[in-house]
Amino acid sequence: MTPFSFDLIASSPGTEARRGRITTKSGSIETPVFMPVGTQATVKTLDPIEVEATGAEIILGNTYHLMLRPGVDVIEEAGGLHPFMRWNRSILTDSGGFQIFSLAQQAKVREEGVTFRSHIDGSARVMTPESVVDLQIRYGSDIMMPLDHLIGLPANPRKIVDATARTRRWLERSIVAWHDHPAAVKGALFGICQGGMDVELRAEEARFLAQCDVAGSAIGGLSVGEPKDVMNAVLEATCPLLPVDRPRYLMGVGSPEDLWNAVARGVDMFDCVLPTRLARNGSLFTPDGRIDILKAEFKHQHLPVDDTCDCTTCARFTRAYMHHLFRARELLGLRLASVHNIRFLVRQVEEMRTAIEAGTFAIAHGDFAARYKPAGPSDRLKAVVA
Amino acid sequence: MTPFSFDLIASSPGTEARRGRITTKSGSIETPVFMPVGTQATVKTLDPIEVEATGAEIILGNTYHLMLRPGVDVIEEAGGLHPFMRWNRSILTDSGGFQIFSLAQQAKVREEGVTFRSHIDGSARVMTPESVVDLQIRYGSDIMMPLDHLIGLPANPRKIVDATARTRRWLERSIVAWHDHPAAVKGALFGICQGGMDVELRAEEARFLAQCDVAGSAIGGLSVGEPKDVMNAVLEATCPLLPVDRPRYLMGVGSPEDLWNAVARGVDMFDCVLPTRLARNGSLFTPDGRIDILKAEFKHQHLPVDDTCDCTTCARFTRAYMHHLFRARELLGLRLASVHNIRFLVRQVEEMRTAIEAGTFAIAHGDFAARYKPAGPSDRLKAVVA
Repeated sequence: MTPFSFDLIASSPGTEARRGRITTKSGSIETPVFMPVGTQATVKTLDPIEVEATGAEIILGNTYHLMLRPGVDVIEEAGGLHPFMRWNRSILTDSGGFQIFSLAQQAKVREEGVTFRSHIDGSARVMTPESVVDLQIRYGSDIMMPLDHLIGLPANPRKIVDATARTRRWLERSIVAWHDHPAAVKGALFGICQGGMDVELRAEEARFLAQCDVAGSAIGGLSVGEPKDVMNAVLEATCPLLPVDRPRYLMGVGSPEDLWNAVARGVDMFDCVLPTRLARNGSLFTPDGRIDILKAEFKHQHLPVDDTCDCTTCARFTRAYMHHLFRARELLGLRLASVHNIRFLVRQVEEMRTAIEAGTFAIAHGDFAARYKPAGPSDRLKAVVA
Repeated sequence: MTPFSFDLIASSPGTEARRGRITTKSGSIETPVFMPVGTQATVKTLDPIEVEATGAEIILGNTYHLMLRPGVDVIEEAGGLHPFMRWNRSILTDSGGFQIFSLAQQAKVREEGVTFRSHIDGSARVMTPESVVDLQIRYGSDIMMPLDHLIGLPANPRKIVDATARTRRWLERSIVAWHDHPAAVKGALFGICQGGMDVELRAEEARFLAQCDVAGSAIGGLSVGEPKDVMNAVLEATCPLLPVDRPRYLMGVGSPEDLWNAVARGVDMFDCVLPTRLARNGSLFTPDGRIDILKAEFKHQHLPVDDTCDCTTCARFTRAYMHHLFRARELLGLRLASVHNIRFLVRQVEEMRTAIEAGTFAIAHGDFAARYKPAGPSDRLKAVVA
């Protein structure tokens, strides 16, 4: 049994923006949606009650990190990831493909799968498309991702094509493994399309993914330092070829401006460590752009970080207090900042949903872009993947 | 106007244990009471809502730290420490005497006061009995402590007598400054008696403090590494000489066993960084003693840290999850552990209050001591002060 559905509720004239609702075995999720990242069975610094209070309806877990620590046995004994970390709403787990190539040591890719060494203790490990599906089912994940093959960019086009073809074959194996798995209840399996920055290859992959038996379409390998117009071009080459009746998930994105741009092109789901990582560095979202709360100018500002914000931080604490906490290196500051930044992104997608329903997405996007000054590209999270 | 009162509600036969109620301008406090420490305008890692949920009715702030960062001007602009840090219940501020001797650089004591350099930026600073009273009134403190003169131990008895005599003279100046201060509403001023480990000198200081015009009696300079029987002897030499109708505050204590021993000897109030500092190191209180949650034995224990505990950590999370968070160095672990350890000490004083009211304190103390195994003396917080 796989309780999963996606209902399209509205679209907005003149854009590809979609308003929908995903239902998983753990509940419903309004889309467009931003998913906070809880890599190690915790959204960094936050109690799950605080995460839920931001309006988040789904969070991410990380297959790679969790298999290394605490280990799937511990999570399974606890009854799955939901009871272990006390998060009752939906969880999407990524496959570990990205982490093997960014964190693991001595990773070797063969057709069968990947061998690597743990970045924690150097122990030898293996991941195959089949083992990754099995792990995610044992975690109790609501939405599961297949193992994909990522390579460093820039790369020989031939290598990109090879990795992309392997990603296809691994997806086919993942689908078989998912169907064959004996679990009585299991999460839905998505597919991932890769293809680097080549829009032709991206279109081919989208066409392939569209005819696969999966519940949703993920777009991987973007937001890795490429210019915004490249990301937009890839989305424009990809989204129209993906099935209308499946949610579209742009992996690892992102910033407020990326969310607006991608929803305008037909994306429904996002995840990113950006809001929590920025928060821990004292960088806070406001409708005008990010502020660095450590700057001396905030020492005497006895007003909220963002006076348009309804988060529990802005409702109670001032810029002066946040400045003090960060200067004094008090951990409460990291928490309060994380709550605010997640709530800021959740509010962005809430505004998008309202605008799509009202048929005014393009206007709302224009209003956002007229006010919000994005940080320079040097501030964007960087990784090098295909 | 100084809204402050202390009402004795009950005592327990065969012990000096007292059950009372303090009322300050910010509310009431049931005694015996444990006060969590919020040195830098935050109880480390915790939201004030979480601190209140532990049952804490009063917290500590630190005059020395707050004058250096964020500075009294910032706190005064915010309307005082309570609105600045969003803690609406009572706040006791210490005088900075201890920090000048433990943290400040180039401290020089003259009769007028102390000159020193900030441990943060090396800036030259001054503290006098009068300036310390003024600072605490500007913070909006509910209970204020006078500047005292601490010296390193062991020390020449002559030096101890000199420092103790200066502490007396500074207290007299503090009382004058407090009376002369033009603030319309101000917190109550306590006195501190010092005297090292010399029970004769301690008794003299207690007699002196008893005839001073202050609202409460603090006992300083204990829990600095001396054996438990020395602390008990000093308390036995001091408490009977202090006024019955004023609360007695044992500064910087302590551990669960120290709380029981001191309440049995007539102490009403305690503060200590121990529960939060231990928590951040993964050391958690249980009725049997402390456990080190990082130990491998907890990896698979899917049960609460303390199954007798009603804190929000024990109600929701397991030893296995806490072990995972500490192993993965996730900040949520520090929070959940801090909540538990504070709640554990608050539950100790709650149990004492119930037992005193029932006239069964000695029995309850025996029950505690029969089960709880204190950590060795090497684990106790150390400092060297007179």
